Order: sequence, then C-alpha cells, then structure tokens
Amino acid sequence: MIVVMKVGSPEAEVSRIAEEFVSWGLTPEKIVGQHKVVIGLVGETVSLDPLQIQEVSPWIEQVLRVEQPFKRASRAYRQGEASEVAVPTPNGTVSFGEHHPIVVVAGPCSVENEAMIIETAQRVRAAGAQFLRGGAFKPRTSPYAFQGHGESALGLLAAARDATGLGIITEVMDAADLDAIAEVADVIQIGARNMQNFSLLKKVGAQDKPILLKRGMAATIEDWLMAAEYILAAGNSNVILCERGIRTFDRQYARNTLDLSVIPVLRSLTHLPIMIDPSHGTGRAEYVPSMAMAAIAAGTDSLMIEVHPDPKKALSDGPQSLTPDRFDGLMRELAVIGNPLGRWAGQPAVV
Amino acid sequence: MIVVMKVGSPEAEVSRIAEEFVSWGLTPEKIVGQHKVVIGLVGETVSLDPLQIQEVSPWIEQVLRVEQPFKRASRAYRQGEASEVAVPTPNGTVSFGEHHPIVVVAGPCSVENEAMIIETAQRVRAAGAQFLRGGAFKPRTSPYAFQGHGESALGLLAAARDATGLGIITEVMDAADLDAIAEVADVIQIGARNMQNFSLLKKVGAQDKPILLKRGMAATIEDWLMAAEYILAAGNSNVILCERGIRTFDRQYARNTLDLSVIPVLRSLTHLPIMIDPSHGTGRAEYVPSMAMAAIAAGTDSLMIEVHPDPKKALSDGPQSLTPDRFDGLMRELAVIGNPLGRWAGQPAVV
Amino acid sequence: MIVVMKVGSPEAEVSRIAEEFVSWGLTPEKIVGQHKVVIGLVGETVSLDPLQIQEVSPWIEQVLRVEQPFKRASRAYRQGEASEVAVPTPNGTVSFGEHHPIVVVAGPCSVENEAMIIETAQRVRAAGAQFLRGGAFKPRTSPYAFQGHGESALGLLAAARDATGLGIITEVMDAADLDAIAEVADVIQIGARNMQNFSLLKKVGAQDKPILLKRGMAATIEDWLMAAEYILAAGNSNVILCERGIRTFDRQYARNTLDLSVIPVLRSLTHLPIMIDPSHGTGRAEYVPSMAMAAIAAGTDSLMIEVHPDPKKALSDGPQSLTPDRFDGLMRELAVIGNPLGRWAGQPAVV
Amino acid sequence: MIVVMKVGSPEAEVSRIAEEFVSWGLTPEKIVGQHKVVIGLVGETVSLDPLQIQEVSPWIEQVLRVEQPFKRASRAYRQGEASEVAVPTPNGTVSFGEHHPIVVVAGPCSVENEAMIIETAQRVRAAGAQFLRGGAFKPRTSPYAFQGHGESALGLLAAARDATGLGIITEVMDAADLDAIAEVADVIQIGARNMQNFSLLKKVGAQDKPILLKRGMAATIEDWLMAAEYILAAGNSNVILCERGIRTFDRQYARNTLDLSVIPVLRSLTHLPIMIDPSHGTGRAEYVPSMAMAAIAAGTDSLMIEVHPDPKKALSDGPQSLTPDRFDGLMRELAVIGNPLGRWAGQPAVV
Repeated sequence: MIVVMKVGSPEAEVSRIAEEFVSWGLTPEKIVGQHKVVIGLVGETVSLDPLQIQEVSPWIEQVLRVEQPFKRASRAYRQGEASEVAVPTPNGTVSFGEHHPIVVVAGPCSVENEAMIIETAQRVRAAGAQFLRGGAFKPRTSPYAFQGHGESALGLLAAARDATGLGIITEVMDAADLDAIAEVADVIQIGARNMQNFSLLKKVGAQDKPILLKRGMAATIEDWLMAAEYILAAGNSNVILCERGIRTFDRQYARNTLDLSVIPVLRSLTHLPIMIDPSHGTGRAEYVPSMAMAAIAAGTDSLMIEVHPDPKKALSDGPQSLTPDRFDGLMRELAVIGNPLGRWAGQPAVV
Repeated sequence: MIVVMKVGSPEAEVSRIAEEFVSWGLTPEKIVGQHKVVIGLVGETVSLDPLQIQEVSPWIEQVLRVEQPFKRASRAYRQGEASEVAVPTPNGTVSFGEHHPIVVVAGPCSVENEAMIIETAQRVRAAGAQFLRGGAFKPRTSPYAFQGHGESALGLLAAARDATGLGIITEVMDAADLDAIAEVADVIQIGARNMQNFSLLKKVGAQDKPILLKRGMAATIEDWLMAAEYILAAGNSNVILCERGIRTFDRQYARNTLDLSVIPVLRSLTHLPIMIDPSHGTGRAEYVPSMAMAAIAAGTDSLMIEVHPDPKKALSDGPQSLTPDRFDGLMRELAVIGNPLGRWAGQPAVV
Repeated sequence: MIVVMKVGSPEAEVSRIAEEFVSWGLTPEKIVGQHKVVIGLVGETVSLDPLQIQEVSPWIEQVLRVEQPFKRASRAYRQGEASEVAVPTPNGTVSFGEHHPIVVVAGPCSVENEAMIIETAQRVRAAGAQFLRGGAFKPRTSPYAFQGHGESALGLLAAARDATGLGIITEVMDAADLDAIAEVADVIQIGARNMQNFSLLKKVGAQDKPILLKRGMAATIEDWLMAAEYILAAGNSNVILCERGIRTFDRQYARNTLDLSVIPVLRSLTHLPIMIDPSHGTGRAEYVPSMAMAAIAAGTDSLMIEVHPDPKKALSDGPQSLTPDRFDGLMRELAVIGNPLGRWAGQPAVV
Repeated sequence: MIVVMKVGSPEAEVSRIAEEFVSWGLTPEKIVGQHKVVIGLVGETVSLDPLQIQEVSPWIEQVLRVEQPFKRASRAYRQGEASEVAVPTPNGTVSFGEHHPIVVVAGPCSVENEAMIIETAQRVRAAGAQFLRGGAFKPRTSPYAFQGHGESALGLLAAARDATGLGIITEVMDAADLDAIAEVADVIQIGARNMQNFSLLKKVGAQDKPILLKRGMAATIEDWLMAAEYILAAGNSNVILCERGIRTFDRQYARNTLDLSVIPVLRSLTHLPIMIDPSHGTGRAEYVPSMAMAAIAAGTDSLMIEVHPDPKKALSDGPQSLTPDRFDGLMRELAVIGNPLGRWAGQPAVV
C-alpha cells in the first residue's frame, strides 16, 4: 500500500500516522517528494482495505494498492502456470484450459421439452460440441416472462446426457435448488446477475462440481476475479470464467458489448480457463459467427453458443440462437482457424 | 408493439407475418411507408417479448415496444397517484412518500458492537433521523474482508431499536436469513448486487415487511422498476426505491456517480417512494452534504446517510461515513432548504 | 511518481532502472515490501508521462501518479482560494464564482430570427437572467440538420444585447469564426464535442474573452480540467466549467446523465467557477426544474437554461426548452432555496 | 417515424396532431391499440428530428425513428455492395475493402526524427505493411506534453515515403494545416477526439484525399456513421472507419475497451471499409497480438499497429508500441489465420 499525503501535511501528523501503522504491525517507509510526502507500507497488507487506511487521517489524499486483491485466482498463485478444469462426462473427460483444445458448449437458452432438448443435443454433438447447455431455471428481467421449467427440465437434461454422452451445463439461481442441479449438471453456471451474490458463491464453493462464472454486466475484471476468489476460497478450485458481454453506452445494434480484450488480460492475471459467449455477448445470431472466430483467434479456451432447433419459437433469447444447420456450418468455419492455431480437436464427432 | 420490416421485404412475407400474429390473437395493422413497411400489433401485447417477435421472420428489422414492461410499479397503475409506504416503529408510524416529510435513515455501514450501535442510534435520533440503518450481513467484494457479525448483530439492532424507538433497516443477502431478519427489521434492504437476484426478490415479495430496493450498479431505470415489479407481483406492495450511485467511466474522484436525475424520472414513471443514498453514491464523506442537499431540492422522499462514531475505525466503508457531530450539522443545513420546500418534519427530535 | 515492480524482479534490474531515473535528473527511493519492490521518484515529475516510465523496463508492473496533472486549474495553484470570472455587460459587470450570487444564463438553443431572440432576451431578463445564450453556429449530429444561421445570427445577438443589456454567450466551432464571434460574445462557449479540440482550445486561450468550457460526453473530470489547462496555459485565465450531462448505459428516459456530483468534486480540485446546464443534461424540459433546484442546493455558481418562446417550433432542441412563462415560474422556485442559501441576487430585474 | 401517444390522449388532440403532420406534407396513419394510440408518419421523414416532432403536443409520449439517419454511409445506398477505398502509393495502388486482402498500417505514434522514421518505415515495409503511420500533429491530453514536431515532421514522412514507397497516413487536428498535410499524406486521419468536430469534417470532405475516421471514445455506432456522413455529404466518398477502443467502466488493465463487435455490426449497416487499431484500443503492447488476430478472424479490412524502434524512448504512447522484431513476428502469426481466411496478401514484401 502507498499512502499519499496532501500538500502541506504537518510533519507531526505524518509521524503520528506512521506510528499508527506501526501499531497495526506494518513498517511504514517515508518518501519526501518536492510537493508531497508518500508513505510505503511494508508488511501483511493484502487484507487491508484502502478505504480503511484513508480514514486514519484527513491529511491522507489517497491510498494506492500495490498488491492485487485476489490471491488464489492470480496467476502468481500457480507460479505462472495455467490451471485446467477436467470434467468427467459420459463421453470421457473433457478439459478446459490453455493447453487443451477449445471446448465447445452449445444448446438452447431454455429447456423447453424432451424432443427439442434431445434433438438439439444430438445435433450439437454431431457437429462437435462436448457440452450441452440448457436453462432449467432462467433469470428473466420480467416476472411475467417464462421462468424456465425448473426441476422437470433437469430430468430432460439428464435424458439428453444419457442419449448423447454430452456433459451438461445449467444455471443455479437459488441455493435451495443446488443439490438437485448438482445431481444432473457436470458444470454449474452462475449467471451474470448473480456474479456478486456472495451467499450463492460461498455455497457453490462448498460443493464439488466445477463452476462456470459469468461476468456481471458491469463487473470490472477485478470484481470478477474477486467473485472467483469467493469460490476458490470456499474450497472449490474448478472455476471457468465466462465473458458474455458488458453494458456500455451503445446498445442500439448489439444487446451488449462483447469484451474480447479480456482474453489477453485474464491470461496475464489468472490461471483460470476462459470461455466466451458470443450469443449473449451480442444478442443477435448474425453477429455470433464472426465473434466466435475472433474469440478463437484471441486465444479463448472455450466457446458457449446458443443453438435452438427453431429459434423463432424459442421461449427465451430466440434472436441470438443459431439453427443446428448454421451451427454445423459455424463449426466447420471455426476449424479453419482453430486447426492452424493448434487448438481444434480434430474431426467433428459422429454419434 | 411496432414491427418494422426491412427495406425490400416481399409482400408475401409481410402477409405471412400478419397471419402469424392473427394466430397469436393479435390484430396487425399495416402502414406502408416510402421505404419501409411497419406493422402495429394491437391486442394483449404487454407480456410479449420483442425478441420473440423478431424471430418470426428474418425480414423483421426491429421491434419497438410501445407499452412499458412494468405494470404494478407504473404510475398509471395508481391513476397517477403516489403511493406511500407506512412503517410502524416504536416512535410511531413513519410514512415514506411524495406527500410526507423527508424521512432520514442514518447509521453505520456495519453493526460492530453494542456500544457503537446504541451510541450511533441515540445520536442520529437526537439529530432527527427516524430510522437506523446498520448491516448485520455485509456484501463485500473480497471474501477476506469483514462480512458482518450476522445473527448476533441482529440482536444488537433490536437493542438499539428498544433504546431509541427508531425503526430498523438492514440488508438480507440470503433467503435463509430472511425470517431472522424480518423479526428485527422494520424495512428489509435488498442491496445493489442482489437487485436482479430474482429468487430473493420473489421471497421478499412473499412476506410482509416493506422492502428497500437499491438500484444495481449498472441497472437501467427500466431494469430497476422491473425488479420492483417482481416484489409487487409476489404480493408485497411496500417497496421503496433507493438510488446509490451508478458505475460510469469516471471513478477517480468519487466511487460511483450519484444519479440524481432519477428523481424526476421516477416521479413520472412510478408511484413508489424514492430514497437517495449519497454516502454510497459518492463514497466520500466530504461530498455527502452537498449531494444530500441536492437530493432534497430535487424532490427525494427520503435520505440514507452513513454515520459512524469513529469513521476511521469503521470495519467497512469508513471514508464515506459522517461523524455524529457532522451529521448533526448536516441535519440543520438540510432544514434550511427542507423547510421552505415544505418537506421537513420540523424540530429535531429530543430523546 | 510511484513505480511498482513485478513480483520476482531481479535486483540488478531494479538497480539499472534506478540509475536510469538518476540520469533523468530524478531521485529514486526504493521500498522493499514482502512481495514487491516499489520505487518512489522524487524531483520534477509533473511533466512526466506514466506511460513513458513504464517502458523503461518490462519488469515494471505499473506506474502510479501521485501529483495531479493539472497545475493552473488546480485549487492549490491559488492557495485554495476560488477564482472569479468577472464579465462586463451593458447592465454592469457580472461575476461568476463561489462568493457571488448564482448567475443565470438563459435563451434558445439556436438564434432563429430577430423577433424570437429579442422577445426571449426580454423575457429572460425580466425573469432575472443576466446572460442570453443563443447558438449562431450549431454542432449537429446530422449534416442534414439545421446548422445555425451563422454570422447573420451574430448580428441578431448583438441586437438582443443592445435591447436588453444582457451579456451574450455563444459557441465557437471553427477557429475561422473566432474573431467575428468575439466581437459580439461576452463569453465564448466551447461545446462538449470540441472539449478536446486542442487546436481550438489553444486559440481561445490566446484571446481575451472568457471561455465557457462544456464537459465532453465521456470526459473524466481529469480530462476536463486538462482541457481547461490548455486555455489557462495559453494565457486566458477566465474559464468557467459547465457540466451538461454525461453518457452512461441508460439513455431511455433522459438524453444524458446530469452529473451533479461534479460540484463538490470540482470545488475541492479547482478554483474555477462551475455552471450546470440541466437542459442538455436531461434533454427533457419536464426534468429541468428539479435538476436546476438540485444544482443550486449542491452549490453551483451558475445555471444555463434553455428557453424558447415556442418550444414546439424550435429549430433545434425543442423538447428541452422551457417556455418563458415556465422559466418565470422556475426563477421564483429557485429563489425559494437560493435565498436561504445566500446565493440569490434578490429581486428579479425589471426592464 | 412512429408517434406514440400517452394513455388517455383526447381524440381531438390526436386529430389536431394528425392535421399538423398533414400540413408538414406527411401522411399520418393512426393505429388504435388497447391502451395507446400510435401514429405512423408516411412521407419524407428522414430529415425530421424526432425531438421536433415530440414538441407538437404534450400528449406525445415518444417518437420512434424507423429510418436510419445515415444515407450515403448506409449499405443500402450501394444496394448492399461494399465500397473500396483505392489509394495510390509509390508501391502501387492499395485498396481497402471487404473484397481485398487486409491492409496493414504500421509505424510510430509520433515522428521523432529522420533516422527513426525511415528505419521504422523500412522495417514495417519489410514485414509486409503497406502504409506508414506517424504523427506530425499530436492530440495530447496535457498542454505540457510533446505536441508533435508539426510541419517539419511532414517532411520526414515524405522522406520515408520516398525511401520505402509506403503510403503515408497522418492526422489533421487543425484545418489550417490541411493543405500542408494533404501534400504529404495519402490518407488523412481524423482522430477520436475530433470525430464530432463538424467544421473539420466538412473541410476534409471538401478535398480529395481519403479519410481515416477514428471512432470517438464514447461515440455510438450511429454517431460514428453520422460523422462519416458529414464527409460523404461534403463530396468525399473515400472514408475508412477505424475502431480504436471505447471508454467503459473498466480501465484498470487496458486503457480502452477495444470493441471488435463493431466489425459485423458495421458490415451489416455500411459499405465503408473497416480498420481496427489494437494498439490504442488496448494501450498495452502485450495485448496487441491477440487483438490483431481477433480482428482478422472477425473480418476487419485493415489493421493499424504501432511500431517504434525503441518503445521505451518513444515521445508518446511507448507502452503500446511493438518493436520492429515483435512486429515481424506478429505479421507471421497473422498470416497463419489470414491465409486460410483468404484475406492475406501472400509473401512479405522485400525492400
């Protein structure tokens, strides 16, 4: 921590502050500049809150943090090595991580009925996806909109898993549903709106299933890594970070602004695997292919893509879904750059 | 709903779409412009999702909503009349609303111990506050930061209530704590980070205590009113809306951007009472007084102000807290404009 | 400047860097923390660019600026005293500043014809305004929209000045028009879109007329003060800062987000006078009164309010204009709080 | 245009409004919904301002634009075909556009001296760039920062052009410099801060050299296309759109948020060629390669990359510059995906 004193701070006050920090168990080191005095705090400062330090004296102008506030999520925590999240599925273990082929997660926003979810699962499996996504519990802006079929949809996801061997990713919104979801899901999703639902983060951190943590709509990268830190600190080390578009000043032509620059930034800050969701990220099916291509080129470890057998009849998020045929084509397009980059798994699977 | 067709849409497609809408029970009305065709949809359109309509045809360029998506929260729902939220407290019923004096809520970010919470309660009561705020369960960005004293703090809030007669406002973060909180709290707060925790909204909507709904950091006014709608739709009609600063591109000198323009905007859109929290809204005690003044001048129904007996020792949010003496002075300053505006309750209370 | 080294930086590299800074004429002071080494740079650092320092070594993690980048605009530059901008007008000198009554600037977005500008001037003068605003050259998003009547409108502003004695404020968009504008205007406005048109800032800084510097739509407070610094550094010390709404994620109900929290922030950072423009700041006439009230309560030195004799026929920005009657009423409402705050000039002027 | 009336609008008022629109030469068509009446305006509505319409009656709730406000910039203006900007350079004509190989523009932020600019030009030419960028006039946030060497730097750019045959791209900040710049530059850049300097846009539109129009930091896509429209409407049809990062709520790890999703959005809205600048877009050299890769995968027509022979000694923007060696390597990496996508020009040029 660096404590910057206001111009004209009395020497006695600077000394008093330094003594206060000594009483906190820290070693203050003073630098006297031309206009300002700066105090460097040496010692166990990670858990200190800059805001708390600021209150030690009205003569403190600002407190600058030098250490990152996240520990377990930081790349340094693993000596610079990437981590991998290995997920057992009926088709075998699938690993998310920097040194693995890109994992493709596909499926509808909501599980609507058995026929559609099984058909979708078969189609995306045939095209090369390893995971099926599908919402049983849906966060909807309006209380009057379709809220997901809930527990009954979990059964349909299990059936789709049985039918195709795909791993299942589905969202938990309420800790009360966690056990039921964990029985079916291979990866449990925390949605953007719950990224800072700290009670829920602690609970998913206290169980075993890997967690897909979506970035909040206005979450800074630091907020996001601190949310991951909640899960890691609670004991679950299998966390995948998913960018799904942020909220900016322009929402006229795309629902959100997909922030692909998080890929190199996260790579340098954290060891955790990275997923990109261009479907929610743009909100429009026609922009998904070019953003999926870009995500691969930028180095993502995984993609989440909405696929619906009949997007115009989708009960939620239809306009951002691809048809299975379009998804088929997209997978072939992705291979064009995934292959030369050495991140593509090879031939599409055949069911 | 207004459906705008792309330039060059085939007439047959426009007819097909119109028929589809008829099959949905709507009456489509076609307007043929110079370049574009527009279809107005007449009928029960409020529950329709524009995104769903868009998927009816690839020739649809955009779907414009004409109706507001919120119903119970809308001003029209009460024929243009303001609602009031009347809260019984030991000192008598306190009403939040456009036709009542401004209600002042004050207290520390966290309940730290019995002495501090009772002292603070007595001081803010003496200065004229009607409610005591204090966190038992605290949402903190870091898992390593102080998370609140939890249930034991609820007992201290009850003691402060007994000692002063002030109403109590405290936050719920986890539905599992709701019953315990509802036993002590006169108003239950939903924090900014849980504004779209829809599971929690439904649960607080299904109980009786009034709800203080803080605006999410990047929540549009429509998102916020839709979150209120969740509570109203679940059966609880006592909702107060609290602005606490939004996230913008500039965070260097103030932690958030306090959006006071919500006051006239909300007034025109909704009947619900409005509260402003300049403490979180700016993050710095020195900016609180002028923003509290501004909030009153703009027409707020209520203010929430952080007060801590010794801000520099506060376990959370110290830099934005006022001392009891500064709060005393501020209340006198607020009266200078609150009185001529006819929104001030008169003499500060004497304990 | 504080230079933070990456974890694991080799000692030899830290020494090399320190020597490099010595060669720049600076005195580096090293603080060795638990995980990181930090170097404080003492000396003439204000003109250094943190980005330039960062390039000295790939082992540098970040560079933190301790000094503010603005000098002449800073409050410290005047030893904490406010400055005033005194503007001679036919009706006498009007001073903008913290220790003066609030100055009200009113008038239409564009000067449309002689009758309308003179009528408006007379009405706003009668209601108590000291300055007439009116655009001769208009920045418009579309090249097909009305661009202002240009030089001929300057003549009409001069006529309105003669008829009422009001000072004139009008915008310069092109340095080629500066002389013509300076002949008529008592204060020259730089619009939000030109806030970082540095060529223009230098030119208005090199002439004598006071400058009204509107904040850019996404300008941080620091960007804005640095734009003022351009004018001050060029020799013109008469700069008024005008907040007119920033661009945020929500534009549905108000055109911009009026950032009233700049008032206390600017007060602490700069000596320059502050103006608030609630008309552009909200974009809707119905929100103007409550935001004007709030601006006064928050401590603004000046208000800019759009008034048009017939807003629905306005050639630009009609919906945010008040009628002269509504402006009359507003001035009486503003007096209700301006008077007890000691910032109101007294009786409305009588022409 | 769609005019939405407030709930409860009197029939007489709706009729009066309809008549007013008839008097404007429009054909109003009325749709009576369950709660609201909507009026579609048929006729020449493109040049109408929604704000102006809103003022016709206080009973108008909102005005929705159905037509896009840009014409010449719209894809429809060219019947869906892409345009190309063909620029003659000593090495031959280079074309920017959807049906051409990706054009690479490289060079330093500022022209510092003859040796550095010629060395850089030779190196980027050898690596495969077709254009040299270099600032003679630099927009700098601080008046105390290096402002570019001005006219003398133009001479050095001409020398670099002679030495390498590369085309030259440099920025104009002041119309007074336009002639001198146009003598040297093959493409003239309008910087982000001048994107809405409408006077300058008109002037560069009235001359012949192609224009590179950078997106403003908080410019919506519509704002940006309307700025292009200014240039097109003034007679210059050679405009290239360059994304260079937008301002969002998070600036901690990257200077701006590079918005790659503009690529598919612009492709659908406009025929103009697209350039991406990952150097300014992220502000850090280490993020440039992955963002350049992503831009190609997303379909950009051109890249602008900062290269400096000794970034740590750069007079401006050092930290975002690549060394010539790193640029060499990057060009080979880009070919890995540029080739299979059919957008790469083939072998690097040999000088």
